[in-house]
Amino acid sequence: MKTIIQNGTIVTATDIYKADLKIEQGAITAISNHFIPEKDDHVIDASGQYILPGGIDVHTHLAWPFQSTGTADDFVTGTQAAAAGGITSIINFTNPKKGQTLLDNLQEWKKKGESSLIDYGFHSIISEYTDHVLEELPILAEREGVTSIKLFMAYKGELMVNDREMYKIMKKAGEVGIITSIHAENGDLIDELVEESLAKGNTDPIFHAYTRPTITESEATGRALAIAEAANAHVYIVHVSCADALEKVERAKKRGVQAFAETCPHYLVLDESYLALPDFEGGKYVCSPPLREKWNQDHLWRGISSGLVSTIGSDHCPFRFEGQKTLGRDNFAKIPNGCPGIEDMFSILYHYGVQEGRISLQKFVEVMSTGPAKLFGLYPKKGSISVGFDADLVLFNPKIRREITKVKQYQNLDYNLYEGTVVQGAITRVLSRGEEIVRDGIVVGQKGRGQYLFRKKVANIEKTVTS
Amino acid sequence: MKTIIQNGTIVTATDIYKADLKIEQGAITAISNHFIPEKDDHVIDASGQYILPGGIDVHTHLAWPFQSTGTADDFVTGTQAAAAGGITSIINFTNPKKGQTLLDNLQEWKKKGESSLIDYGFHSIISEYTDHVLEELPILAEREGVTSIKLFMAYKGELMVNDREMYKIMKKAGEVGIITSIHAENGDLIDELVEESLAKGNTDPIFHAYTRPTITESEATGRALAIAEAANAHVYIVHVSCADALEKVERAKKRGVQAFAETCPHYLVLDESYLALPDFEGGKYVCSPPLREKWNQDHLWRGISSGLVSTIGSDHCPFRFEGQKTLGRDNFAKIPNGCPGIEDMFSILYHYGVQEGRISLQKFVEVMSTGPAKLFGLYPKKGSISVGFDADLVLFNPKIRREITKVKQYQNLDYNLYEGTVVQGAITRVLSRGEEIVRDGIVVGQKGRGQYLFRKKVANIEKTVTS
Amino acid sequence: MKTIIQNGTIVTATDIYKADLKIEQGAITAISNHFIPEKDDHVIDASGQYILPGGIDVHTHLAWPFQSTGTADDFVTGTQAAAAGGITSIINFTNPKKGQTLLDNLQEWKKKGESSLIDYGFHSIISEYTDHVLEELPILAEREGVTSIKLFMAYKGELMVNDREMYKIMKKAGEVGIITSIHAENGDLIDELVEESLAKGNTDPIFHAYTRPTITESEATGRALAIAEAANAHVYIVHVSCADALEKVERAKKRGVQAFAETCPHYLVLDESYLALPDFEGGKYVCSPPLREKWNQDHLWRGISSGLVSTIGSDHCPFRFEGQKTLGRDNFAKIPNGCPGIEDMFSILYHYGVQEGRISLQKFVEVMSTGPAKLFGLYPKKGSISVGFDADLVLFNPKIRREITKVKQYQNLDYNLYEGTVVQGAITRVLSRGEEIVRDGIVVGQKGRGQYLFRKKVANIEKTVTS
Amino acid sequence: MKTIIQNGTIVTATDIYKADLKIEQGAITAISNHFIPEKDDHVIDASGQYILPGGIDVHTHLAWPFQSTGTADDFVTGTQAAAAGGITSIINFTNPKKGQTLLDNLQEWKKKGESSLIDYGFHSIISEYTDHVLEELPILAEREGVTSIKLFMAYKGELMVNDREMYKIMKKAGEVGIITSIHAENGDLIDELVEESLAKGNTDPIFHAYTRPTITESEATGRALAIAEAANAHVYIVHVSCADALEKVERAKKRGVQAFAETCPHYLVLDESYLALPDFEGGKYVCSPPLREKWNQDHLWRGISSGLVSTIGSDHCPFRFEGQKTLGRDNFAKIPNGCPGIEDMFSILYHYGVQEGRISLQKFVEVMSTGPAKLFGLYPKKGSISVGFDADLVLFNPKIRREITKVKQYQNLDYNLYEGTVVQGAITRVLSRGEEIVRDGIVVGQKGRGQYLFRKKVANIEKTVTS
Repeated sequence: MKTIIQNGTIVTATDIYKADLKIEQGAITAISNHFIPEKDDHVIDASGQYILPGGIDVHTHLAWPFQSTGTADDFVTGTQAAAAGGITSIINFTNPKKGQTLLDNLQEWKKKGESSLIDYGFHSIISEYTDHVLEELPILAEREGVTSIKLFMAYKGELMVNDREMYKIMKKAGEVGIITSIHAENGDLIDELVEESLAKGNTDPIFHAYTRPTITESEATGRALAIAEAANAHVYIVHVSCADALEKVERAKKRGVQAFAETCPHYLVLDESYLALPDFEGGKYVCSPPLREKWNQDHLWRGISSGLVSTIGSDHCPFRFEGQKTLGRDNFAKIPNGCPGIEDMFSILYHYGVQEGRISLQKFVEVMSTGPAKLFGLYPKKGSISVGFDADLVLFNPKIRREITKVKQYQNLDYNLYEGTVVQGAITRVLSRGEEIVRDGIVVGQKGRGQYLFRKKVANIEKTVTS
Repeated sequence: MKTIIQNGTIVTATDIYKADLKIEQGAITAISNHFIPEKDDHVIDASGQYILPGGIDVHTHLAWPFQSTGTADDFVTGTQAAAAGGITSIINFTNPKKGQTLLDNLQEWKKKGESSLIDYGFHSIISEYTDHVLEELPILAEREGVTSIKLFMAYKGELMVNDREMYKIMKKAGEVGIITSIHAENGDLIDELVEESLAKGNTDPIFHAYTRPTITESEATGRALAIAEAANAHVYIVHVSCADALEKVERAKKRGVQAFAETCPHYLVLDESYLALPDFEGGKYVCSPPLREKWNQDHLWRGISSGLVSTIGSDHCPFRFEGQKTLGRDNFAKIPNGCPGIEDMFSILYHYGVQEGRISLQKFVEVMSTGPAKLFGLYPKKGSISVGFDADLVLFNPKIRREITKVKQYQNLDYNLYEGTVVQGAITRVLSRGEEIVRDGIVVGQKGRGQYLFRKKVANIEKTVTS
Repeated sequence: MKTIIQNGTIVTATDIYKADLKIEQGAITAISNHFIPEKDDHVIDASGQYILPGGIDVHTHLAWPFQSTGTADDFVTGTQAAAAGGITSIINFTNPKKGQTLLDNLQEWKKKGESSLIDYGFHSIISEYTDHVLEELPILAEREGVTSIKLFMAYKGELMVNDREMYKIMKKAGEVGIITSIHAENGDLIDELVEESLAKGNTDPIFHAYTRPTITESEATGRALAIAEAANAHVYIVHVSCADALEKVERAKKRGVQAFAETCPHYLVLDESYLALPDFEGGKYVCSPPLREKWNQDHLWRGISSGLVSTIGSDHCPFRFEGQKTLGRDNFAKIPNGCPGIEDMFSILYHYGVQEGRISLQKFVEVMSTGPAKLFGLYPKKGSISVGFDADLVLFNPKIRREITKVKQYQNLDYNLYEGTVVQGAITRVLSRGEEIVRDGIVVGQKGRGQYLFRKKVANIEKTVTS
Repeated sequence: MKTIIQNGTIVTATDIYKADLKIEQGAITAISNHFIPEKDDHVIDASGQYILPGGIDVHTHLAWPFQSTGTADDFVTGTQAAAAGGITSIINFTNPKKGQTLLDNLQEWKKKGESSLIDYGFHSIISEYTDHVLEELPILAEREGVTSIKLFMAYKGELMVNDREMYKIMKKAGEVGIITSIHAENGDLIDELVEESLAKGNTDPIFHAYTRPTITESEATGRALAIAEAANAHVYIVHVSCADALEKVERAKKRGVQAFAETCPHYLVLDESYLALPDFEGGKYVCSPPLREKWNQDHLWRGISSGLVSTIGSDHCPFRFEGQKTLGRDNFAKIPNGCPGIEDMFSILYHYGVQEGRISLQKFVEVMSTGPAKLFGLYPKKGSISVGFDADLVLFNPKIRREITKVKQYQNLDYNLYEGTVVQGAITRVLSRGEEIVRDGIVVGQKGRGQYLFRKKVANIEKTVTS
């Protein structure tokens, strides 16, 4: 049985054109100006709709233990939300326990992932340097298809590595074809600023922002890039939130560092003032790096437009308001750091980006799908719409207006960051390897149908990328 | 009758994948993992070959009167050379006579173009400001499909306009959807430097370079961008040759100017030292801006890689060595300014760019075809390989090594800029609207088969570009 | 007879210290911790006061015919105002008539200068290029001590030269030790923007600002610096008003251009909003370049502090409100361009600079006196307080607060730019070559006592500057 | 008894003029165009000579225990060498032992300093953070006149503090008027690069440079500046060796950080190639940061010229070749890090700076004396030649040529960095508080005559600096 999608407008990172699609055994086998369906074919009419590559979210924290709690979405609710939001692949972070090997930890996470509705892979977090770690890296890449790791420059005592450890890990990663993601904030400095703030009785959520000023992010970003340069390694700066940090990436790229930047939807449309909302409402917006002064947003959008930003990640790290965020009602430092995002990332980026004219529709596809696929070894199975690619597709009706609200969300949350926002366009269907997992905006795919993503090694990304 | 291309590897500005192509009535009607040809089908086997979108050269000077002479290629030899070199569309410059209207002039050029082997369009040069010009611009765009013009900041008395004229023309152009190309050199300053040099007896070709220092280009580039900003117009800086000028474009883009940069193959691989070759050999390399110090090349390549450079143009402005270049044997200022390029641009960019690892194959496609098509209103008929596009295709065998030499060229010239260079890869076939015009490297298309390109207006290029 | 100044605090561009001064025959002959005056000595008590080098204003337009009128101060009222304001030397602009030689014109101006109360020199404006001009330059420098000229990039038809002329003049100037001052605005572009504005009926003073956007200044600044670089000449950008133009100077300095920047008091403390004052009040603030958006001021102050700005000039180009500024009541383009400044420059810079902590007192001295003296060939007779220098001194009481008002001014004007501003500090006495010309804030010097300033050639200013 | 210096040319950071000087009780009491000496006066004829303020070297390591050894000069030989080299004040680093308080340590160093020939002060190094340190800072400043400290970002386990400690110390220092000097190299990264290098058998001195690439310096510099910004503290980057690090200082100054840069004579004239000299000669040139590629020198010189660099420090950290440098004959990591410089700094800067036209003589005075005096609280007793200043003076004959050689040096060393270099100009006499300590180039001052320098707190240095 084949699936035929008729009358839609296909969009890739470069092209927009009307054509019909044929899907067989989960993959796109033909694109034509007109297919005459055969009797048994499953025919989908995409008239008036865009057919976009499924979103790839390389920054998720499903089922993630953190600080005194854990994220509110597991691989079931989290991937339902993802699917509803046009995401067909995720790469989730692992989080090894003290003393646990990366490989042992990975097995635990692969187990967790089995309940996923969509395809899933992992970045291995390395929160503790040992020489053993260096020996595990080639095995991760070769045997497990885990070709990305993540290091933290903040959360000392919990996740943070020092510069020497960062260099050693990056160097080995570079040698074996692994890209290193960096959480770039100067943890040492932040810890002191937090302590200062609390000592003065400044405990409201807004002080989360004041104790993590942009300089703590841009400093760490510059440092990570310098170390990557010395280590001759690919480096990926996650969740760039401000102009200063982005400029550090730009300068590194110019001197030839294989450096890449991600930003997140909340940095593009929300700002620091949300943290000052009364009645602890600000607590909902606590994530790290914090939301920034509004003027930074233009720099981030321009970075997307110019190619300086390679990807959008949701940094989906959800905590419920009641019972989780409220842990920090009297002390911002106890608010779990993280915001939801996976379900609305696609809509937010389309609305504020494409609809409002900041980026082209092709650029939207590039940062939502093609860019992440190429950087993280999923290309050319994922990340575009061409013959031979997996039929991970989103049908999107740009004519519909809809309101974002917690009432309708799949996220296991009692609030939504964008509550009440009216956006242009709606996801009508989502296909994952040819199977409809969302129909009429309703998730219909079954949990556990997702497949593990064994990923390719990182290549010279700015240069030759071939299949 | 259909044409089927089997077993090739299709390349777009974003994707590389194996598939078969079906061509009907000059256009791509289907792409599939496998086509079973029917009896009458014309079948082309592309095993082991890349299938690339035909090159689009938006910078040609065929049949172009200039200085005391005229270019050596007309629309017959020039488009034969183009076809042999993988170019399936050109946009040639017009050159109005004193007192002639743009529209009258255009008709003359459209007449000239009728002998073309490949599809052709025109940029209208405006070398003389009159109020009448402003009235002609909307007619050019609406009725003639000429949606680009060109202004010169050099060649005073012949082509140069002043800043006020430039502003007025750009402003009107911006209003009616026309993009303005700029030859950015400070003609005033150059004229004086040339006079100084000749007065000192410095008459050799190398003084062509010394009297047009990079500062004359970067100054004019900055000025053109400032004027475009004031005029709220799209601006396209042709033949950027040096780091300083490119930086001006970068800074303008950052402040939101709709600015775009082109560079040329000779600036990427040749340098100033060629102008100092003995026995007047240097005369062959005289073009404007001149070849630069070698270190500039890295900046240009990085500009392509990062997206700062949007297109490669050949600036094909050919003069024979004997009888044309030699006019300036005793006085570099009498050497006709211009170099050939249309036949080798594709190969040079592939070899030094893709083969040597400076850019990806997708980026090659972007600057050779997709970028020019989008900027100059040919998209989405030209510029990519997707269903619905014209079947302008190049079959390219990356395994073959070949030598560039004047002996085998179609260009009507007695020399080749790259004589003796051995490059990787060879164009085996070229299709223009589905018709084979090059077979086994031999031009087989007929002159006069090219069609006039009626072009769309320029849109907000960095942002939403839709079909 | 000697003059002894006792108990004051002497300030130079580097030092602040308490000491007594001895003055003989117009010059400083000794500085001591204590002088015991002799019987006939003229003793001045400077207790509690700063003794500062007299201000040197290298940007004045006294008795200057311009546009349809002429400036309101001649050498009598203008130099009285200067003296009252702590200025002991001026360099005024000439303004040759069409067809007149620079030397003939200079004689006329030297005649005009004879009524001056303070020492005076001239910059020769070159508003018309002829080959003869190049021959006059060495004579100006050698025989007349005029070692600076000025060129305009705006006011086409009246003052503007083109790029080629600018280059030729700068080159010759550089060869003979003359520094070239530049009025950097793109006149061509401005003329068109003005015409556009008027055609739309936008005739209020604020449109003076809108039709001279910063880009017209920064473009021209960049161009002048590029041409100076090609010409290997010293260049001095007068009245830098905005961050963008200042950045051009900074970049030029970095690449080794002998480039210098002046700013004016009104750009440091007034802003564009003044041009929008109702009832044509805005007309009082019309000068070129126009007042800018307020945020530029920080960049100018920081430029002074860092050494990027070498001098403060008043650009004293005064027009009465009634009868002069009001010429443009119905058309901003008819408002004479220029603002007063010579009388209040010193106070404004002290108050907003030193008093409010933006610059040190030594830096104040540097930009008000030492810098201009060194750049314009008056050093080491003028510009500092050391043995051997002319006794051009200002006694300044930093304890007094006073209000600036037209009621008390010497300027021949019916308004004051800073009306009602209360500033800290007051000039109590001014000495010119040892003679008291201001006593208790009252001008007591006689007109005509000023001497012509025969100036030295410009040297390699950033490098070795010796006596 | 008075001292009269006749017929010399006095130079300050702003002025050069001929005058006579009168010295009484160690201070300058008068400057005059002519003094008639009285009978008992000590008269010095300075005809044909410059009279310059004594050099102030704020970066010395006399009697300094380091790594496995200690520096070769104590306060006797070191200050003899200093005096011979025109230095009349030093600020030496302390070096507390583990567990020792800063104040206890300071007393030990003050004791050591008592044998000094010239005036001396101390920067307290803080190599170990304890809360107690923060309590000592105000005492250091108030009671001891120690208004500068130093922190290291390298030499982990020995001297290095982490970012949090750096912030806390800087913050307190800023509050109490202490400036923080920073040794900015990323120690973590360097330690690993050194280990890598040694593991590969790369043990020659040149690997000292290769394992401390400029990125390790520029990264740390940027980090220190970011932390100083957060801490709102004055920061002084010692021994800036390369363009990248200097640019970091420039950018910090622009955003308003109270940041200052020092460079050293060896970075201005020597380069990385010296480390590759055969037969372990390279070992003589091992210091940290290492000598850099030659192109960096232009940036450093331009930084001095433009005011970006505030001071020249010798970083005199001398080790004998035999027995000290040779400790690392088989392992560059065992070569004591440090080079001599105090005796030749003055001559080297004059020759390569002033004589060769890179900087003015006034700028020489500024970075050698006035700048250090102002930054480190010695002004206005030290740092200039004006009435009331200490008579710390250097008589310098610019006509003499002389050769630098270890044979004639006072430094307790068996080599000289500049052996055989012929420089223009010679120091003939040096006065310290009016007393001749060098006569005819011979040190005649007695050890122990130096006085302890109780220093003022740091003020807003770029802004108002008054006496």
